[in-house]
Amino acid sequence: MRVVVIGGGAGGLTAASNIRKYDKNAEITVITMDSHVAYSPCAIPYVLGGEIGSFEDIIMHQPENYKEMGINILTEAEVYEVLSDGNKVEYRTKDGDEKEINYDYLVMATGGTPFIPPVEGTDLEGVFKVRTIEDGEKIKKWAEKSKKAVIIGAGAIGLEIGFELKNLGLDVSVTEMLPQILPRSLDPDMAEKVQGYLEREGINVVLGKPVEKLVGEKRVQKAVVGDETIDADLVIMSTGVRPQVKLAEQAGCKIGRWAVQVNEKMQTSVPNIYAVGDCVEVFDGITGQNTLSPFGTTAVRQGKVAAKNITGKGGVFLPVLNSTVSKVGKLEIGAVGLTETAADLNGIHVFSGRSHALTRARYYPGCKPIDIKLVCNREGRIIGSQIIAKETVAERVDTMAVAIAKEVNCKELSNMEFSYAPPVSMVVDPVVIAAEDACEKLKNSSGSKD
Amino acid sequence: MRVVVIGGGAGGLTAASNIRKYDKNAEITVITMDSHVAYSPCAIPYVLGGEIGSFEDIIMHQPENYKEMGINILTEAEVYEVLSDGNKVEYRTKDGDEKEINYDYLVMATGGTPFIPPVEGTDLEGVFKVRTIEDGEKIKKWAEKSKKAVIIGAGAIGLEIGFELKNLGLDVSVTEMLPQILPRSLDPDMAEKVQGYLEREGINVVLGKPVEKLVGEKRVQKAVVGDETIDADLVIMSTGVRPQVKLAEQAGCKIGRWAVQVNEKMQTSVPNIYAVGDCVEVFDGITGQNTLSPFGTTAVRQGKVAAKNITGKGGVFLPVLNSTVSKVGKLEIGAVGLTETAADLNGIHVFSGRSHALTRARYYPGCKPIDIKLVCNREGRIIGSQIIAKETVAERVDTMAVAIAKEVNCKELSNMEFSYAPPVSMVVDPVVIAAEDACEKLKNSSGSKD
Repeated sequence: MRVVVIGGGAGGLTAASNIRKYDKNAEITVITMDSHVAYSPCAIPYVLGGEIGSFEDIIMHQPENYKEMGINILTEAEVYEVLSDGNKVEYRTKDGDEKEINYDYLVMATGGTPFIPPVEGTDLEGVFKVRTIEDGEKIKKWAEKSKKAVIIGAGAIGLEIGFELKNLGLDVSVTEMLPQILPRSLDPDMAEKVQGYLEREGINVVLGKPVEKLVGEKRVQKAVVGDETIDADLVIMSTGVRPQVKLAEQAGCKIGRWAVQVNEKMQTSVPNIYAVGDCVEVFDGITGQNTLSPFGTTAVRQGKVAAKNITGKGGVFLPVLNSTVSKVGKLEIGAVGLTETAADLNGIHVFSGRSHALTRARYYPGCKPIDIKLVCNREGRIIGSQIIAKETVAERVDTMAVAIAKEVNCKELSNMEFSYAPPVSMVVDPVVIAAEDACEKLKNSSGSKD
Repeated sequence: MRVVVIGGGAGGLTAASNIRKYDKNAEITVITMDSHVAYSPCAIPYVLGGEIGSFEDIIMHQPENYKEMGINILTEAEVYEVLSDGNKVEYRTKDGDEKEINYDYLVMATGGTPFIPPVEGTDLEGVFKVRTIEDGEKIKKWAEKSKKAVIIGAGAIGLEIGFELKNLGLDVSVTEMLPQILPRSLDPDMAEKVQGYLEREGINVVLGKPVEKLVGEKRVQKAVVGDETIDADLVIMSTGVRPQVKLAEQAGCKIGRWAVQVNEKMQTSVPNIYAVGDCVEVFDGITGQNTLSPFGTTAVRQGKVAAKNITGKGGVFLPVLNSTVSKVGKLEIGAVGLTETAADLNGIHVFSGRSHALTRARYYPGCKPIDIKLVCNREGRIIGSQIIAKETVAERVDTMAVAIAKEVNCKELSNMEFSYAPPVSMVVDPVVIAAEDACEKLKNSSGSKD
């Protein structure tokens, strides 16, 4: 069996190594435009800020490591044609040679491309996107001689990068077209708490102002956002990522509303072409609608499912809840399921439960404030959660991911057994407090007996 | 409505304050033998070791605070007779006066009494139990002039106290009658990991040796455990706690195999007497058998349920999974559900999934090793989990508590969406790795297709 994987990110490499796990004889080739494989793009901000020593540190494996597993990796190589009728891929090597390779199965793991708004000046020197290690290296070098950074786009990556640049001593402004930061993962009330933290730490947050243009001669000097002009010698375009579907489309794979369509086996409309990672669209576990899930964790889970199906093991990728966490400065911000905003957009009536509590017993040194929001549908079922604190956020998001996946309602959650010891938790867990708050609201709204 | 609560621990006070929450007019009286109320007994070890500044810090409220809520608290007062036919309690005040008080509802929250094995020498000076703040104060004072401590009983409290005494500079031996430490919460394989940590930190662990006697003239000088004699000028008896059921029995409440019997409303066999906390027995959520759940969190949840039922709101206490976590030195140790050992004792056939991974991305500074064990029944349903690491254990136990309560199997758990960011988690969560390990074993044992 010959398998070709296009793309060397989390989805592609997971598919490749799991195909090897289940089939010792498969010929596996991974073709990637990147010069590195198996690194953690999510870690780029932390190398930039110096928390992680070097970009080398975030490279988990070298192509040679895959060679040892019998996986052939072609770096800096670009597939320019997929001939799905002939089960053949044409690509250009690092040295510019044109070659072709046949496959029995093809895995599209082409990822996403940073979306750069079509405004003037984004090609000036000092304007960067954040996607690859090379991007990170360039930013780090440029930052050394910079004083004022403007981050366009206040999603997780924008905030992470912004904070790390501030740690390097730069003046940092984060600008966002929408009226709040982190619009995909947080509701306005929770976003305000993060914004307060950023502002207290000295970051200038500019909301509701789209980038109009970047100004400079050769090098960027100013960013114009809405009616505001901000001095800048370093600009980061963190304005989102678009699924890279060009090759899939060319291969005849059906493209959905957002990206490549796949069934629960991660199979495209072309039976021997599978697709995984940021280039595919998936189903939302709450709304049932098509959605994107551009996370490394999703890519890994999809890569495993594709590998199982290609090797005949069988496997199913379930609708997503989009669990996410990021660390901005010392603050951890997590979310899973729907925000109230997203629920409204989907016509789902919701109410919320909240708590403002502590991560440990209040008398235990080092306990930290924590904010939790639970989004519940009309029947009280938890369909989303947002959590902000300086510790334990990721694990609490995971707890909520299990609760949401298993259709737990606020009453049940308020009765769940959370573990307790003063150095590590509160006797009544902050999640339980939020669930009790939700129960009160449910009772009041429905008039039903508790 | 007149309510009398016997006992001022977590269960009793939660019942009292929740009755007040639902009924503004109830006359509520709490009678406790203790001189303090509303403190955290679980925090005593950490005051001892100096992590928490003083015993004052772990007292959450004073009797006066309850007075403001309209709850009358009688400290250092002992109920010596419950006349359930007359709905009357007779008690002795701090000053030795004998009084009586009538009730419409009585809440038994009499807690537990440290079990002291019937051996010679436990009344010597320098021999302590750990239950109240007074115990803690006495130990702290005695420890200042001590050099060698022997802890009898290697449960969570014994280990916590042992480590804190070591931190104070004492030579510490922990002895246990059973062949492993933490026999209630961990299986032998996981207990060994904790034991290794203790020994590396310089604690002498003596297993499989019951205490035979304590030796000394006036002051303790030696502890004899099995065939071994250990020098000691400070001995802690952390040999377990027995439910205090005397008053309940006298009042005519039915006593079960382990403690006071209650229904799901926390009502005893005497209809207007409720019981909560360490003095009651409950149902195990996995085996369905009667069991004990001597945790502050359980007491709080029971207190709420009792209050709701006494005030006519209605509420149900569900079978327990006994989520627990403790911090011993820098190590957090957590468990929920059944151990393999407990499953065997209950005739449940189990297998386990394991992972040895990291709490954060391996390149992120400060990431820590983590060990996870999942106990699954023959169908792969998770019925227990044990987790050991220097961080994030409590929250992961909570995740597993939800998973176990919702009858998640290992396959489902391996597909759960765990959140990821390099500073706070691994791209494939250690819980998922353990679940995948369990899936492999399930597949191999059943021969079924994955």
